[in-house]
Amino acid sequence: MKPTIVTGAMAGLLLMSSAALAQSNTKPLAGFTEKASQTQLQNEARFDQLISADNIGKTIYEFSARPHHIGSAAGKAVAGKVAARFKEYGFTVNIETFQVLFPTPKVRELELTYPTKYKAVLKELAVKEDPSSSQEGQLPTYNAWGADGDVNGELVFVNYGLPSDYEQLEKLGIDVNGKIVIAKYGRSWRGIKPKIAQEHGAIGCIIYSDPKDDGYYQGEVYPKGAFKNEYGVQRGSVMDMVVYPGDPLTPNIASTENAPRLERSKAANLLKIPVLPISYHDAKPLLEALGGPVAPEDWRGALPITYHVGPGSAKVHLHVECEWKQTPCYDVIATMQGEAYPDEWVIRGNHHDAWVNGAADPVSGLAALLEEAKAIGQLVKQGWKPQRTLVYCAWDGEEPGLMGSTEWVEAHADELEQKAVIYINTDGNGRGFLQAGGSHALEPLMDDIAKAVIDPQTKVSVYERRKANDIIKASTLIARKDALAKRSLSLSALGSGSDYTSFLQHVGVPSLNLEFGGEDDGGEYHSIYDSYSNYVRFKDSGFLYGAALAQTAGRVALRMANAEILPFNFRTLYTTVNGYVTDLMSQVEQMREATNVENQILRGRAYKLAADPKTLSIAPKPKEELPYMDFSPLQNAMQDFDKVTRLAGDSLSRFLLTTNDHGPINKLLFQAEQQLMNPKGLPSRPWFKHTLYAPGFYTGYGVKTMPGIREAIEQRKWNQAQEQINLAADAIRQLADHLYLLAKLAG
Amino acid sequence: MKPTIVTGAMAGLLLMSSAALAQSNTKPLAGFTEKASQTQLQNEARFDQLISADNIGKTIYEFSARPHHIGSAAGKAVAGKVAARFKEYGFTVNIETFQVLFPTPKVRELELTYPTKYKAVLKELAVKEDPSSSQEGQLPTYNAWGADGDVNGELVFVNYGLPSDYEQLEKLGIDVNGKIVIAKYGRSWRGIKPKIAQEHGAIGCIIYSDPKDDGYYQGEVYPKGAFKNEYGVQRGSVMDMVVYPGDPLTPNIASTENAPRLERSKAANLLKIPVLPISYHDAKPLLEALGGPVAPEDWRGALPITYHVGPGSAKVHLHVECEWKQTPCYDVIATMQGEAYPDEWVIRGNHHDAWVNGAADPVSGLAALLEEAKAIGQLVKQGWKPQRTLVYCAWDGEEPGLMGSTEWVEAHADELEQKAVIYINTDGNGRGFLQAGGSHALEPLMDDIAKAVIDPQTKVSVYERRKANDIIKASTLIARKDALAKRSLSLSALGSGSDYTSFLQHVGVPSLNLEFGGEDDGGEYHSIYDSYSNYVRFKDSGFLYGAALAQTAGRVALRMANAEILPFNFRTLYTTVNGYVTDLMSQVEQMREATNVENQILRGRAYKLAADPKTLSIAPKPKEELPYMDFSPLQNAMQDFDKVTRLAGDSLSRFLLTTNDHGPINKLLFQAEQQLMNPKGLPSRPWFKHTLYAPGFYTGYGVKTMPGIREAIEQRKWNQAQEQINLAADAIRQLADHLYLLAKLAG
Repeated sequence: MKPTIVTGAMAGLLLMSSAALAQSNTKPLAGFTEKASQTQLQNEARFDQLISADNIGKTIYEFSARPHHIGSAAGKAVAGKVAARFKEYGFTVNIETFQVLFPTPKVRELELTYPTKYKAVLKELAVKEDPSSSQEGQLPTYNAWGADGDVNGELVFVNYGLPSDYEQLEKLGIDVNGKIVIAKYGRSWRGIKPKIAQEHGAIGCIIYSDPKDDGYYQGEVYPKGAFKNEYGVQRGSVMDMVVYPGDPLTPNIASTENAPRLERSKAANLLKIPVLPISYHDAKPLLEALGGPVAPEDWRGALPITYHVGPGSAKVHLHVECEWKQTPCYDVIATMQGEAYPDEWVIRGNHHDAWVNGAADPVSGLAALLEEAKAIGQLVKQGWKPQRTLVYCAWDGEEPGLMGSTEWVEAHADELEQKAVIYINTDGNGRGFLQAGGSHALEPLMDDIAKAVIDPQTKVSVYERRKANDIIKASTLIARKDALAKRSLSLSALGSGSDYTSFLQHVGVPSLNLEFGGEDDGGEYHSIYDSYSNYVRFKDSGFLYGAALAQTAGRVALRMANAEILPFNFRTLYTTVNGYVTDLMSQVEQMREATNVENQILRGRAYKLAADPKTLSIAPKPKEELPYMDFSPLQNAMQDFDKVTRLAGDSLSRFLLTTNDHGPINKLLFQAEQQLMNPKGLPSRPWFKHTLYAPGFYTGYGVKTMPGIREAIEQRKWNQAQEQINLAADAIRQLADHLYLLAKLAG
Repeated sequence: MKPTIVTGAMAGLLLMSSAALAQSNTKPLAGFTEKASQTQLQNEARFDQLISADNIGKTIYEFSARPHHIGSAAGKAVAGKVAARFKEYGFTVNIETFQVLFPTPKVRELELTYPTKYKAVLKELAVKEDPSSSQEGQLPTYNAWGADGDVNGELVFVNYGLPSDYEQLEKLGIDVNGKIVIAKYGRSWRGIKPKIAQEHGAIGCIIYSDPKDDGYYQGEVYPKGAFKNEYGVQRGSVMDMVVYPGDPLTPNIASTENAPRLERSKAANLLKIPVLPISYHDAKPLLEALGGPVAPEDWRGALPITYHVGPGSAKVHLHVECEWKQTPCYDVIATMQGEAYPDEWVIRGNHHDAWVNGAADPVSGLAALLEEAKAIGQLVKQGWKPQRTLVYCAWDGEEPGLMGSTEWVEAHADELEQKAVIYINTDGNGRGFLQAGGSHALEPLMDDIAKAVIDPQTKVSVYERRKANDIIKASTLIARKDALAKRSLSLSALGSGSDYTSFLQHVGVPSLNLEFGGEDDGGEYHSIYDSYSNYVRFKDSGFLYGAALAQTAGRVALRMANAEILPFNFRTLYTTVNGYVTDLMSQVEQMREATNVENQILRGRAYKLAADPKTLSIAPKPKEELPYMDFSPLQNAMQDFDKVTRLAGDSLSRFLLTTNDHGPINKLLFQAEQQLMNPKGLPSRPWFKHTLYAPGFYTGYGVKTMPGIREAIEQRKWNQAQEQINLAADAIRQLADHLYLLAKLAG
């Protein structure tokens, strides 16, 4: 497909910039000899030129044309079209099909039954400005994996439904046991809200989007602006993914047709209570009917009412039933075999299923991925060869619970341990600033690439634009100075919420997650308004950031595919982990002090004396004082890690220049992350094995670094914290030993 | 009047508690010999018993029965009744009458003229649950002292109308010149909003109460709850009181009938633009009509709209005209002559005029003051004698601009310099926690008294309850530890907003301002809903805090009236001022660093690179680097102040025990605060002469400590800052010299 003039001009600019960078940058690329480095930079510049923003726009238009959730005919058709594209580009394609459980709603009812009657609409309205909003085949508004249930109960407003919100409820003397809760979307992953409600004895959970977080308070509502209108509803999974993602009936194994399956009632990641997401139009009468204390100030939203907590004055009836069906899950796997190291896989993925039309989520990311595949195909046709095998993947069933990627990883776990060099994930895209998370040994590589890709709006590197934003957004003087002084990109640590989870946290494949955003706010997420029409108006209008994403993610793939020595940097990893350890130790001391001060206050009468006798408020209970924990095993392991990472870098540099067969070294390099896996997994969720990164048990998507230790501390489980310190120390020592072997081998 | 059983029982409790305190406290009261101390404590306990909460309630009922603003017949009647009460209690009473300018509205019109039409209601609605809300004689909703004007213009929303809001507008490229602004009530004194708008060229100013700050967002609205309903409007003065308060035509002199007067156009504290306060019912259509950028997140309120800044899409017509009349201002001055020192005056005051019925503001404070006068009268009838003269005052015209107190102070300035020992102010009262501000040499006295008065809800001292609240409300661990460790009351520094201003800041009379509050939130302030009915439902239902206020303020009066040596503590003042100096010096260093960092950012391109090209945003201009200032004059003066306050305390203690005639020492003691007055006053507002305390030029009520220096620094006027450092140093050295004289005299 011929690039348009604009795109061509842009590609030209990028080519010059890359070339200029290459010339000015006399140091060769990390992992490349000087000569190979020059070739690589030229190939990357050619790759940039082959990326067409227009073409990405056309792909978004095509793949978001119809609602295409997992199990739908349109979803199957999308998988087929993706496969056809890959084939056209010269890849070998295989559609791997799994059979996964997937619930779709049969009954959805919500009524206010007392003191007045109100029957919830439970429907997003089509708007004439957005043609696809009126299409057939849309999944209704629901939360997949909520239990079937028909419950009546008093309503309680629980803010965002976080653990701290329930602490606040306790102070107000309010118990949700036997009640139905209503929580706001936001601040935690949605699945955490009904989980915590259920832990507290609630019999049902309603989740709504408050206009303060996602509606008129933020800006004009759809279709005038991008924000949620009063009927908009966020669909989404409430599977307890932090226990394990994927098919709930087949944890740890692939859900092939004949795989042994759990009974549904035995699946540890499924809720026992019904859940329903609603609009703020439907939430208003419910919240307005609540009595009880006025909600604490930071609980209040932007509806024109006085927010109360309840219970007692409002009763609701909630009825949800689903069809629970085995559903085919189509993963499209495309490979371009590596010339030198066919058994070293550079894996790149984005899902193809959507909750509805999904122009932004996932199609904008998928379109960038397909554009990369197209460019790679063209490079190959022009004679370029990947040295390692490129595996381009389009996952099905990500929305209900990372199904496609999880089942595929579980199916290929042993092979991945032997072959997977890296997994590069995207999951949609927008306009703005580079957001990059991942394995910290990849941080210098990502820094290098962020400094090579050009921001389409400002023509500086995406690194430089991101840094400018970090400086301007820094809220304190210290933060501004830090942001000014920074000279390289930081990767954020990965929690969950997209397909990297199984790769990184179950198997230990070094992973990256990439997107652009920050100038594309809106309320279309998981709604019928996530459409092409919405995307071109409010997201990435000219698809220029789609091109930038393809250039970024594709460049990682090309660099990792052809590096002579894989550009992992374990010194960076050491520095990052050292920060985590310091942070954990100081957090323990802060908790110790806070506990002592709080207990001192409780021994006095301050709570009682300060309380307003006209309102009920219950003083917190005294907390157990913190024991002193032994961090020395971790500190000693870190000392070894420190030493060996000082050594290894030099050895590898020498090795690159003196040796030709880098195979054994490279395998040790990409398998290093696996040394951080604890085979027993995390406490009460053995599927998650990484000792550095996991989604938080009570945050969901939000990461917990060194999760075993951190969550034990947060949950005040001191024996478990000590065990987890020891386990993390073992993992780090295992990595240090592994790197020592590597340094020795490199000489 | 016979106390009820409840009140009698409470008084009994208080008596026991005071007695118990006196017994356990073997140290005599500060300023009293041991014997005098015992007598004093007994008299204070008797005083407590004479305070009747019920009687306070009846006084509130009586004096809030009708709207009684300055100039109204009902206002004159209230002054007469107050005078009659004082006479009945045995005081000598004089009504001093001044003639002050006071504008009342003839025309009030506000219309949205484009893009749709809306005519503002501009009227609070009577509610049947509150009988006085429908009375005749209410002043309409307006802001006294706004200019007459009939203007048409585009509307701009300016948040709270603070200087920082205009900086934000500049970044958005929005100029209010020639436009009409709409600002929210809150965050600054209301008069600051039109003043800053006028400085920026605005031609009119509308002020409204957003439901987020004062409406349904905070709690149930009136009459169901205490918060502002959609028609509620806050009246109030927008005189530029931080230039000078009182009659605008007679600055520095008393506005007696024949006093020379300025022309109105020459009065430096009067605005040139019209101003009108409105309800959120009236604000909604105006704000809804605004276009332009979406308001920054922290500007948005709780109306169910997307807040925009404007201008361009909404036009309004604002027309205000007032009758500007010379109006009699009736100050009721009641004296009970001192036996030993008739020419040493202990002054106690609260205003009697209200915007409408004013049950909370001012009557709840006035009722406590009258109850004190009643109890003092009874003590005198029983044979007790004040050693110094007690001067009990009820001021008129506080609401429009501290008229009554200012004119009285200006009339008696020379006499006050010779005779005024202390001024004790109140201005209404509520339920909750003691709030005490004032001259820091009075801090230990106030601490002592706060530990003697019993909180009616918890039966601990009002000090202990306040401390409990400070501990519980502390938001950081450090703040909690500090609050826990505190062993004495801190006085806040006084800005303005009530009748202490002239005493403290114009003449240098040591002052206190006292009230209870924090458990009595509501939206009745300056509205027709500030009624007796509202007060008993939502403020201080049983008037028990009215009694506590009388016991607190009355105890200060009794203690100061009969102390052998006046209990000023200049060591405490030294410590406080030393904190201010340290704070100012570190603030300069922080500004220096912030300026350097900001300029460094501006030399780079971060603002440009981070900006969203789809929205207009203008980078701030570079700021001049800070010169280094010479703080040494101030530091040297503080060194002398340090030394002399170490000396003086011991001398005074010896003097108390060895000498009988304390007269000359006491005069030096109460005149010490006058040493801190700079006769030239503050830059561009010479009326304000105190070098330690002033209302902020751009905050209004909010205090600026060491205002000359602090505001010059904040406004980046470096030469002025240096001059003010030198002037403050002179004032502190003058105080140190004065105290040295005192120490020498005391031996």
